[in-house]
Amino acid sequence: MARWEPNARGRLEEAAFELFAEHGFEQVTVAEIAGRAGLTERTFYRHFADKREVLFPDANPLVTGLAEALERAPEAPHPIATVAAVLEDAGGFFADRHAYSRRRNAVIAANAELREREAVKLALMADTLAGGLRARGVPDPAASLAAEAGIAVFKVAHARWVADPEPRDLRELMRDAMRQLKAVTAEA
Amino acid sequence: MARWEPNARGRLEEAAFELFAEHGFEQVTVAEIAGRAGLTERTFYRHFADKREVLFPDANPLVTGLAEALERAPEAPHPIATVAAVLEDAGGFFADRHAYSRRRNAVIAANAELREREAVKLALMADTLAGGLRARGVPDPAASLAAEAGIAVFKVAHARWVADPEPRDLRELMRDAMRQLKAVTAEA
Repeated sequence: MARWEPNARGRLEEAAFELFAEHGFEQVTVAEIAGRAGLTERTFYRHFADKREVLFPDANPLVTGLAEALERAPEAPHPIATVAAVLEDAGGFFADRHAYSRRRNAVIAANAELREREAVKLALMADTLAGGLRARGVPDPAASLAAEAGIAVFKVAHARWVADPEPRDLRELMRDAMRQLKAVTAEA
Repeated sequence: MARWEPNARGRLEEAAFELFAEHGFEQVTVAEIAGRAGLTERTFYRHFADKREVLFPDANPLVTGLAEALERAPEAPHPIATVAAVLEDAGGFFADRHAYSRRRNAVIAANAELREREAVKLALMADTLAGGLRARGVPDPAASLAAEAGIAVFKVAHARWVADPEPRDLRELMRDAMRQLKAVTAEA
């Protein structure tokens, strides 16, 4: 009989992050995560396929959020304006996640396989953004290039944001990175 | 006793590509690749750790080539000029590889895991480029953004190049993509 475990998913995430930070991702077992959370392995597997899914959920909320932000974004005269609107919208997702993102980033930075997963996630975000722009009638290669530009801005701004122990506004860092990308490419 | 097998690596690559195209990457075994090439499995494993390495060599020639092109690139007033010089240089690598690249691309496009490896390779290329720009004294975030812009240009131009059955000049497609990226970000 499954008992109702209040916030089991959140407790498992918290326990996993603690253990990853203490021992490194590779060393930690699902049994240890469940034990630290005061839950069973069976409960763990009701929420996650494996320990990697704690860091990279199957239905990635960031990718889903991007797709939804694209649907909400107002009509814009240029694809990069749509991309900027989507990044502003996505910035809200991170508003209260600075401490969490710093911990997650430290775990990922320490493991080659997880760094690769992060690269794959960013590529998926770029594909999602490019597909959304095409659906709005933006032709290629402008759609792909505007999407890649947006993800470059996100990647660079997010890296600066998690590197800083002080929680700054990620949206400001993204606006700044977009300005700098514009200045960099203007010299091409 | 190892016999000397003339161009064993090239024959194994050719056999692997044929079999991947015929049956799909997942279905093909190393024994089949070696058999098609008229070589032993042992010979295969002298050249490749596994069948994936036929498509993604450990010391990726493109990543190595980028690093070398960065060393050769002349002093430039702006990081994007260095990136453009590196892309021109890298374009030479692809000059006689259109048919090969189209076959490789078809195999990769058909397999989710291989598409992920390709995303990881592009991220590694961006890191290599950013590191080279930093080594030339370009500060961050300009170094990261110029590198990401260069890889976005490469990715979009390369995708157009392999999509076209006619072999065009990849360097021209990269110049065109760079112009379009500049136009896209100018509206930010």
